[in-house]
Amino acid sequence: MRRVRIGLLGCGTVGGGFVRLLDRERGRIRARFGVDLEIGRILVRDIGKERPGVDRDLLTTCALDVIDSDCELVVEVVGGVHTAGTFVRRAIARGRHVVTANKALLAANGSELFDAAAQSGVEIGFEASVCGGVPVIGALRRGLAGDSIESIAGILNGTSNYVLCRMAEGLGLADAVLRAQEAGFAEADPSLDIDGEDAAQKLAILAQLAFDEPVRRTSVIGIQSVTPEEIERARAEGCVVRQVAEASRVAGGVSLVVEPRRVPLAHPLARVVDEQNAVVIRGRAVGEVVLSGRGAGSMPTAAAVLSDVLWSAAA
Amino acid sequence: MRRVRIGLLGCGTVGGGFVRLLDRERGRIRARFGVDLEIGRILVRDIGKERPGVDRDLLTTCALDVIDSDCELVVEVVGGVHTAGTFVRRAIARGRHVVTANKALLAANGSELFDAAAQSGVEIGFEASVCGGVPVIGALRRGLAGDSIESIAGILNGTSNYVLCRMAEGLGLADAVLRAQEAGFAEADPSLDIDGEDAAQKLAILAQLAFDEPVRRTSVIGIQSVTPEEIERARAEGCVVRQVAEASRVAGGVSLVVEPRRVPLAHPLARVVDEQNAVVIRGRAVGEVVLSGRGAGSMPTAAAVLSDVLWSAAA
Repeated sequence: MRRVRIGLLGCGTVGGGFVRLLDRERGRIRARFGVDLEIGRILVRDIGKERPGVDRDLLTTCALDVIDSDCELVVEVVGGVHTAGTFVRRAIARGRHVVTANKALLAANGSELFDAAAQSGVEIGFEASVCGGVPVIGALRRGLAGDSIESIAGILNGTSNYVLCRMAEGLGLADAVLRAQEAGFAEADPSLDIDGEDAAQKLAILAQLAFDEPVRRTSVIGIQSVTPEEIERARAEGCVVRQVAEASRVAGGVSLVVEPRRVPLAHPLARVVDEQNAVVIRGRAVGEVVLSGRGAGSMPTAAAVLSDVLWSAAA
Repeated sequence: MRRVRIGLLGCGTVGGGFVRLLDRERGRIRARFGVDLEIGRILVRDIGKERPGVDRDLLTTCALDVIDSDCELVVEVVGGVHTAGTFVRRAIARGRHVVTANKALLAANGSELFDAAAQSGVEIGFEASVCGGVPVIGALRRGLAGDSIESIAGILNGTSNYVLCRMAEGLGLADAVLRAQEAGFAEADPSLDIDGEDAAQKLAILAQLAFDEPVRRTSVIGIQSVTPEEIERARAEGCVVRQVAEASRVAGGVSLVVEPRRVPLAHPLARVVDEQNAVVIRGRAVGEVVLSGRGAGSMPTAAAVLSDVLWSAAA
């Protein structure tokens, strides 16, 4: 049986979920795919922290211990742009496949990293970077690759959708955000979610996959501007308010827009409730294809990471 | 630029759509993927038939002219089990990748063909065999491969869904079938659609991908049994009637059921109207992922074939 050693950078929400999930799925993967996936080293910030189910002997606070170990594949789930970028560049240069959930990094430096990966003959898997466990990256990269994509419209940020759903029940923005934090969806600082930047990063990644043209226009409006009156007016018109992220073709390129919109109840995006994500992809030949599911959370995101690991390992 | 020659077996609804779609997308695919896809020969039954947009010089009535030509890849869209199976076996034996839309063939002989392909070191692409342009095969094969699938429930046959939607508007079964035929969805003989066999074949293919256990039980009930009274009773309970295909784990294996069911209006499958298809995949880690879109038709199915061709060619 082929054994593939994985270097894991980060052991927080997604990284910890990945360790637990691999533990659970390893036997099934061995039996079905004939490959034994094993975590070799794990980068953490604090070795002393309690991590149930994680072998303490694997932990290190030095990234090079992980990247330069005898791993074939590096999983990057530390997040952020600068440090994570340094790690990913080194892993690529050392000939490791990379799997990442890091939307900020890919939105900022995606094309440079993909070029470097192509030159080193390694793969970058990034299914987990957009819509968590919903396999929208694979759908655009492979399943719909034969078609010309005309537009993509989605709810790409679960926190702001959760907040808008609570506001539709009568809460104010601040209380709705608090509720999202209590439910574990929103970060301590939820501004990237609320102001649309997180959705804009994910939209940029999807647009890069779907369109060959350059981005001509980007407009991002957060949900801070949504008032209870606006939600009430939408309801009176048979609509709900959703933070819609849309990429579409315009003269000479692609337009990226993230903004709160009234969406008629019959529209697929109106039915996306709470922390769910959904993407409506319109192809010239296939028409409208809709994918939806849980767009965040430890285990769904870890499942997307593990699927990418599996396919890089099998490649 | 790498040139890949394709042998096309069949030039009917899907095959003709494939020729037109490749014609349209060839330039984009060259620019983006660096591969030039070219159809070398086309198997047809009747050379004299009018086929707008198809180069008559490529046509032949001899399958070996196609399979044994200098093509790298064979697209099988003749349908049926016996003859198509002979073609696919020969293509595999000759070392050609195969892309097929043939659900009946895969449901009947899938494991034998996949074993043969593995031995010959070629790929079988079959995204087009289930749900037309909706990339559900790719989702199960790759995007969700890291997770344990608990169940799959879908509307896998567009014709019977179209018929049930017309019956909900007051038509009888016979008139609803006639309407589906007029709209171009139903075959001249729609019995495979109506009696659930088509959905059962597709469900068997999905179950093979999702589960490692053997099929313990298959139960198929067609929509002939659905009466106007049953549809009325469902409506009174806030439900619609749908032909649901469901694969789930039972003791010692997997159970496959196709049957008309009452589905509450809030359920994702209740919202699938007319000839649409949808699949609800429940994974242990990812939770519920829903994919929906046009499950049949010349261009959506051709798009799925072309996506598979592209990825086999790039492999």
